[in-house]
Amino acid sequence: MKYFVTGAAGFIGSNVVDYLLEIGHEVVGYDNLSTGRKEFLEKALPEKKFTFISGDINSKAFLANAMRGCEFVFHFAANADVRFGLEHPSKDLEQNTIGTFNVLEAMRQEGIKQIAFSSTGSVYGEAAVIPTPENAPFPVQTSLYGASKLAGESLISAYAEGFGFKVWIFRFVSILGERYSHGHVFDFYKKLLKNPEELAVLGNGLQTKSYLYVGDCVNAIFTAINKAKDKINIFNLGTDQYCQVNDSIGWITKSLSLTPRVEYTGNERGWIGDNPFIFLDCNKIRSLGWTPKLTIEQGIMKTLEYLQTNHWLINNE
Amino acid sequence: MKYFVTGAAGFIGSNVVDYLLEIGHEVVGYDNLSTGRKEFLEKALPEKKFTFISGDINSKAFLANAMRGCEFVFHFAANADVRFGLEHPSKDLEQNTIGTFNVLEAMRQEGIKQIAFSSTGSVYGEAAVIPTPENAPFPVQTSLYGASKLAGESLISAYAEGFGFKVWIFRFVSILGERYSHGHVFDFYKKLLKNPEELAVLGNGLQTKSYLYVGDCVNAIFTAINKAKDKINIFNLGTDQYCQVNDSIGWITKSLSLTPRVEYTGNERGWIGDNPFIFLDCNKIRSLGWTPKLTIEQGIMKTLEYLQTNHWLINNE
Repeated sequence: MKYFVTGAAGFIGSNVVDYLLEIGHEVVGYDNLSTGRKEFLEKALPEKKFTFISGDINSKAFLANAMRGCEFVFHFAANADVRFGLEHPSKDLEQNTIGTFNVLEAMRQEGIKQIAFSSTGSVYGEAAVIPTPENAPFPVQTSLYGASKLAGESLISAYAEGFGFKVWIFRFVSILGERYSHGHVFDFYKKLLKNPEELAVLGNGLQTKSYLYVGDCVNAIFTAINKAKDKINIFNLGTDQYCQVNDSIGWITKSLSLTPRVEYTGNERGWIGDNPFIFLDCNKIRSLGWTPKLTIEQGIMKTLEYLQTNHWLINNE
Repeated sequence: MKYFVTGAAGFIGSNVVDYLLEIGHEVVGYDNLSTGRKEFLEKALPEKKFTFISGDINSKAFLANAMRGCEFVFHFAANADVRFGLEHPSKDLEQNTIGTFNVLEAMRQEGIKQIAFSSTGSVYGEAAVIPTPENAPFPVQTSLYGASKLAGESLISAYAEGFGFKVWIFRFVSILGERYSHGHVFDFYKKLLKNPEELAVLGNGLQTKSYLYVGDCVNAIFTAINKAKDKINIFNLGTDQYCQVNDSIGWITKSLSLTPRVEYTGNERGWIGDNPFIFLDCNKIRSLGWTPKLTIEQGIMKTLEYLQTNHWLINNE
């Protein structure tokens, strides 16, 4: 089968590209390389079954043309920067909501009717129920990122209903692992490289989050696509564990044999719209037989190892 | 106080404009007159405290300029045409989602931090719980209209969190009454004017919906704004009654002394994405002391009387 992957040079996108090629599929990877890295496609690029197209999802005609002949779209291209939404409020709308609309319209034009979409646990806002199931109470958005992703989900569902699409929507916790290139492990490691004596932490260190290793994430995505065949398939993806930012600091500094002085900015939220506790109920995806192989601590260690052997990612930032 | 009303020449917008002027406020009415009718402002236009500005919410600089000096925004401008979303998929996105974003950005630029927004019961999709409360399970969108309004709600909530806005979001059932200019009563009356012997009905006549009289709707909006003072205030607005399309046909034809042959298109949905049963739990707004004065039947009769004395609305369509 021939797959189209937006955000193909991104963290999760490039891992999905590699997996699709491994199991023998043809893949067209599409990325505007604004945050994606061509280095993440070093395994894919030499493959005969892989084509890379440099383009933006908001270049409508170019996008539709690039998609021609594909049968399934993985839509990962997005502004994934939750934290700085308020500094440029139109970015999430343009890249995540309008971008998703453009992907859907290109699919409709090209007669492609299957899409998998990377949404986020942030769509639950400050969840009333924790661990939060897919059918949690009607959420109230707390970030422009969450708002833009929920809008993307909503458009995709409306296309499923209105145009006969079959859709898979994944609400991720934070993902860790190879090609991880933004988030707290990246920030902490970078800061500690610069000054091993001190670590400034946004928030009070008590924010509780859940993380999932990217290999487990890719397995979960394909488990859902292979086994869930409803018109609209929505899955939380996470582990059944959570940790505090302080736990993560402990694992990272221990592994680096450092004992920095930790300075907290002192609030329960790292930034406005930050959710102090994200923990998803993942029984739905587990009921399909999927189970994560790595613990959060193992995921963080894998990430750290990856960053230690890929300093170019930190230096080139 | 000085209010800004988008969609001021529309059905609900013009009724809110009249009410604001009645209680002595200054009002700037903004409308692109694409579906709004200047006739709906015939009471407002001669008033000294009223200014009408013809403009589009997607004309960003013009909109911000028009808003200058106002303290509170009622945002009613929208594509309210639920039924034909699939024929022009970008319309809901542009007018309802991007339009709402532009209103929020104009407010931010002008330092205005209070907004009331007309959302819709359609955001619940095919609700899992009926009557549907505001905190119903996480909805799955079935129409582009619902998707675009949920996106609007989400943006508004994110602005409340991120920029300190205070917001009131209203999820309406279908509204009836003076200046009603699209929907089933309009369609049925128009068809019966043309041919009193026959009435073609979308769906099977058994679709069950709830309706609210516009006067009751306006009262509910101001009850909420005056009494609910949270950062984000979300209210369903409807009656605690519902009726079938067939009930409505009975009331209308009886009032017109007609006995047309009724022809059904035969499906439980009038159109793709139509929801066969919308009925909202309105205990939250009722707990503030509001109660509707008219029954659904009375609302439909008021609407019919209005249409009978305003044939220009039907002829000019």
